[in-house]
Amino acid sequence: MARDSRYDVLFQPVRIGPVTAPNRLYQVPHASGMTNALPRVRAAFRETKAEGGWGVICTGACSIDQTSDDAPLPFATLWDKNDIQAHALMTDAVHRHGALAGVELWHGGASVMNRASRLPPLSPSGVPWMATHVGFMGNLRPKSMDRSDIRDVLRWQAEGARNARTAGFDIVYVYAGMGYLGYEFLLPEYNHRSDEYGGGIENRVRFVREMLEVTRDAVGMDCGVALRVSLEELRGRPGKHHESEAHALVALLSDHADLFDVKMDSSPTDCSASRFTGEGSHEPAIDFVKRMTDKPVVGVGRFTSPDTMVSQIRRGVLDFIGGARPSIADPFLPAKIREGRIEEIRECIGCNICISSWHDGVPVRCTQNPTAGEEWRRGWHPERVTIARRPEKVLIVGGGPAGLECALTAARQGHEVTIADRNAAWGGRLTFEKTLPGLSAWNRVVDYRLGRLAEMANVSMYLESELGVDEITDLAPDHLVLAPGARWTRMLYSSMEIPVGTLEHPAVFTPDDIAAGRLPEGPTLVFDFDNYYYGGVLTEHLAASGIAVSYVTPAGQASAWTIMTNELPLVHRALARRNVSVTTLQMLTAFDGTTATLTHLFTGETTAVSCRSVLIVGLRLPRRTLVDAVEARRADLEAAGIRSVVTIGDGLAPGAIAHAVHSGHKAARELGQREGRRHYLRDMPITDCEPGFDRAEAAE
Amino acid sequence: MARDSRYDVLFQPVRIGPVTAPNRLYQVPHASGMTNALPRVRAAFRETKAEGGWGVICTGACSIDQTSDDAPLPFATLWDKNDIQAHALMTDAVHRHGALAGVELWHGGASVMNRASRLPPLSPSGVPWMATHVGFMGNLRPKSMDRSDIRDVLRWQAEGARNARTAGFDIVYVYAGMGYLGYEFLLPEYNHRSDEYGGGIENRVRFVREMLEVTRDAVGMDCGVALRVSLEELRGRPGKHHESEAHALVALLSDHADLFDVKMDSSPTDCSASRFTGEGSHEPAIDFVKRMTDKPVVGVGRFTSPDTMVSQIRRGVLDFIGGARPSIADPFLPAKIREGRIEEIRECIGCNICISSWHDGVPVRCTQNPTAGEEWRRGWHPERVTIARRPEKVLIVGGGPAGLECALTAARQGHEVTIADRNAAWGGRLTFEKTLPGLSAWNRVVDYRLGRLAEMANVSMYLESELGVDEITDLAPDHLVLAPGARWTRMLYSSMEIPVGTLEHPAVFTPDDIAAGRLPEGPTLVFDFDNYYYGGVLTEHLAASGIAVSYVTPAGQASAWTIMTNELPLVHRALARRNVSVTTLQMLTAFDGTTATLTHLFTGETTAVSCRSVLIVGLRLPRRTLVDAVEARRADLEAAGIRSVVTIGDGLAPGAIAHAVHSGHKAARELGQREGRRHYLRDMPITDCEPGFDRAEAAE
Repeated sequence: MARDSRYDVLFQPVRIGPVTAPNRLYQVPHASGMTNALPRVRAAFRETKAEGGWGVICTGACSIDQTSDDAPLPFATLWDKNDIQAHALMTDAVHRHGALAGVELWHGGASVMNRASRLPPLSPSGVPWMATHVGFMGNLRPKSMDRSDIRDVLRWQAEGARNARTAGFDIVYVYAGMGYLGYEFLLPEYNHRSDEYGGGIENRVRFVREMLEVTRDAVGMDCGVALRVSLEELRGRPGKHHESEAHALVALLSDHADLFDVKMDSSPTDCSASRFTGEGSHEPAIDFVKRMTDKPVVGVGRFTSPDTMVSQIRRGVLDFIGGARPSIADPFLPAKIREGRIEEIRECIGCNICISSWHDGVPVRCTQNPTAGEEWRRGWHPERVTIARRPEKVLIVGGGPAGLECALTAARQGHEVTIADRNAAWGGRLTFEKTLPGLSAWNRVVDYRLGRLAEMANVSMYLESELGVDEITDLAPDHLVLAPGARWTRMLYSSMEIPVGTLEHPAVFTPDDIAAGRLPEGPTLVFDFDNYYYGGVLTEHLAASGIAVSYVTPAGQASAWTIMTNELPLVHRALARRNVSVTTLQMLTAFDGTTATLTHLFTGETTAVSCRSVLIVGLRLPRRTLVDAVEARRADLEAAGIRSVVTIGDGLAPGAIAHAVHSGHKAARELGQREGRRHYLRDMPITDCEPGFDRAEAAE
Repeated sequence: MARDSRYDVLFQPVRIGPVTAPNRLYQVPHASGMTNALPRVRAAFRETKAEGGWGVICTGACSIDQTSDDAPLPFATLWDKNDIQAHALMTDAVHRHGALAGVELWHGGASVMNRASRLPPLSPSGVPWMATHVGFMGNLRPKSMDRSDIRDVLRWQAEGARNARTAGFDIVYVYAGMGYLGYEFLLPEYNHRSDEYGGGIENRVRFVREMLEVTRDAVGMDCGVALRVSLEELRGRPGKHHESEAHALVALLSDHADLFDVKMDSSPTDCSASRFTGEGSHEPAIDFVKRMTDKPVVGVGRFTSPDTMVSQIRRGVLDFIGGARPSIADPFLPAKIREGRIEEIRECIGCNICISSWHDGVPVRCTQNPTAGEEWRRGWHPERVTIARRPEKVLIVGGGPAGLECALTAARQGHEVTIADRNAAWGGRLTFEKTLPGLSAWNRVVDYRLGRLAEMANVSMYLESELGVDEITDLAPDHLVLAPGARWTRMLYSSMEIPVGTLEHPAVFTPDDIAAGRLPEGPTLVFDFDNYYYGGVLTEHLAASGIAVSYVTPAGQASAWTIMTNELPLVHRALARRNVSVTTLQMLTAFDGTTATLTHLFTGETTAVSCRSVLIVGLRLPRRTLVDAVEARRADLEAAGIRSVVTIGDGLAPGAIAHAVHSGHKAARELGQREGRRHYLRDMPITDCEPGFDRAEAAE
């Protein structure tokens, strides 16, 4: 199918100072969690996006000095020759596909805790970031930078820029966003200085301008110099000569940068989840930038629709369509637009499992794209599979996320795939969950797979088909894949922090009851020790259904784990809007139909709460009926010629949807194989130079 | 000084199966946070303890397979030839000093989240650990192990044991403690199996017994086989044939292990802080073990007193005195006992900054021993310094932890040291803090340093001596070190999670007021956004002084960061005992002398609270008066011959006491040096084998 000409504008080349991007689709810097410890994993991850047509591919934050040490959070480094070699793997890989490679040089300032380097963090005025999330807390406040500290950082930036050029980067960043050092100089809340680096916006931009100047001096005309800057807070501050201090900043720095990469100020607004925020949410904060500069501008907004992308350019909001999450969900998004294969785009669902991976301190994971991060270590490609030498019959029982992904991947390999589900619709848990407040975009997981499967001649799909062992042996596939999903239990939670015992009472509900349309009588107490989105969103659902509801958890916050997906503050606001009371640090320990007993997690103090029903969002366990029946009759299956049986997804190990999709993909890739002695290839750092190598030598 | 003969028993050799430990001082497995990514850092850290006389030196948890992947928490691995080489650096280093080297082979079971490997975690029955601390939460529940999974783990253990033997280890562990896989089989709360691995204790020990058997088969008589087991929960379960299931376990496994390494079940009881728990706290749970087995027994209890150690052995509680924290605080503890230098022991203060380092995901740090983890990368030794070629005059202004450590280290180098403090006692912040509930052991930081300094002829110490620039230039030292400490501010906390503005009212107190003996009028509202121990302990102090007090924090728990030091549950219990109400997720936003306004961190909802006074435990900033005065008169200092001026400790970057001690030590080691281009040597993994190397080859 040919491309619609209205998308042609996306494929125009655009100059960034001395270099030229081949098109307007720009993978902005984003965390991969891979660091220089996994250079081959990282290079393959980034290369796949270049292969998929992104015109610019950037790294994530790349530290310029040991005073910018975010451990245990993942970060790249450009400190020595080994680091240069590690990054060169990525730039070479990106260049093979005609894309430009950019590096986000970074100093974290007061936002990093230097837990490993044990050096005092740097800051304009000693104002620390003091997070309420324990994982981000530290016990060391930053020092206030003196003149020699400022000179040091400028020298490190220049060294980093030279190292970047040596490593083959085409675009070198100065980073002044997201609470990091450059940003701290811009914002009066962090910058209380009385010297020429503090005061009015003209003074507060000085440090960033000097960073741009030393970067330009270091790379000359070999690389473009990009400024990445957060503008939300400054936009809210009226300027003396301009509408806002954000306007002033762009005007003051326009001559010093070849590109403006503009964004929001905090992770929850910058990388907001689809549950609470739609596509293009940055526009109100950054729509003015192109009016203040003739330099190209890139911005993001979880863009997956090519029409929205074209609109951003036509309306003069952006020159480049920045992508981070959408480029992870579909590395081939540009190629699919270019080739007129719009309906094949695997759209980001905005669940933010990717950013949770960084918060978790591990390589990026993606719900939609199970191959993200697995390109090198497992040899998985998002668009290509090995075609089976001999097509085999694959029967998949269960059409949730795991089953659908397994079916699609097996079908792509050329197998003859049958998938059956006992329900009236495909999607498993998403059939209900997509109807809950804010979760409709999550059904893209199902829509994408159903759309692809519908086009394939080697796939047979059966709804409302409950298969037992007899039906399975009658069908006699070569390979049997069981994807039965999981069920929620009525188990309680002990002070050992594990599920124990079961609360049996007719008015005790589980999420499965709610999904089946059985609503509890109010007032209802929701007891959540799952701690991800589900307890919170079901509480919203009950409240929206007119039931008086209160929320209780042993954690310190409602849906506590959603701090990892940037949702937590918005969960609390959503519950407050619905007049839901939130009680933390309490375990539900008893319920008699009229009174629930809560026990404090730490002190053991008990409280009685009046309620008519209880909903426990706690432990899920696999549905075992079919799996057990199959195991009991293994001989019959062998007699029917069934050569392999595996269980996947929640039916094996209940998890988030990302885990189910990964599990289904893995089962298809490894069809008929016994799990090997080696689970995956192990990457390792580049260590051509001696340990203890001195950075000073690298900078020569 | 000669050793007291009553300590001779500590230096008897003891057999562990086929190997013999040279004495009874045994560094049990403990986390170093260093992992195989920092093999030289790790080898030097462990070697220093062998040099200091510990008879056995063990690793921390060492994963036997990618299904045991605790990322981002640090863990060692023994998966391939590179890993063998990495550990051989440590075993060689340990053997150089005549000690035995042990390896804690480890499978985390359901306690690990396999965030990086993306494999389903393993467990006896699908029961997960579901922590309330977000950093430990995951979204993937474990699978229930089938027979082939059990066979896999046994095979991995055997491979790990063979690799350990190849790496040069003398003692190989089976680990069945602390919620990890072996432990999960032992405990009915985790183990619901109906096969021969579940049910009575005879069945529940089966998996651990098989792990011991395959380990013995793998290493033959080349290594001792140790069992590390948590006994607290099992001791509370009556046995059929024995007093408790813990008794039964030891009896059932006595023939299968060469050594019992016994401990508690959860981090807060196993590695308890001195604030709430004294020396030898494990004894009630493990005192029976030697009655049930003739194999040697090692246990811990933060032992720093040689008399307590001898008592443990004489009374038949233990054969080996296990040390983890005391061996970090003083790697030379055994040598100091052996050589009759008891008073030189640098006793562990039980602050648990070491375990917080593991929770933080970074290499171990210690309050008492600033050289821990710095042996290789900075070349620091806990007992040796480089003697100055020419002694110089060093003036230190400020006698808190940073100043005292700097003075001691400079004096050891042979310099002529003067230290002055304007107060009437040495210790800085500890002068008051040591008087607070539970913190008396922390003053060992001061006592140790004062004790050493008192013996040195090249040190002059002056209390009640406030020095200004004139006095400093009159003294005319070669080097001036300023250690003025920090002051607590009245700054508030914004929803940006940084301190902003200041609350000015006569009834607003800071911790400095309390330290100065100015007690607030009750009811007092304590607003804590420092989130470490101080807000909680000051609240206890006020309540103990008879003031009605409530505690408010924007975090999810009281003293939220103390989850990292294993104190948090006990902080809540201590506050509950004093009838203190705890309010979380709230910011203090206003106070007029009778009413405080609280604003919800996420929803912005406000609440009015009646109180007569407020104590803000929030932001500390350096005391700048003397530092600014010195900077303003830099020329006068130069004229007086003062060649270097540095500020250290809280006066530079306010932090925990550990940071102050490190800062003081560093200043002395680097006297007169400008911070170099290279902050420290950078370690890197051993990568002799190719990336992607298959474990199967290593096991040959």
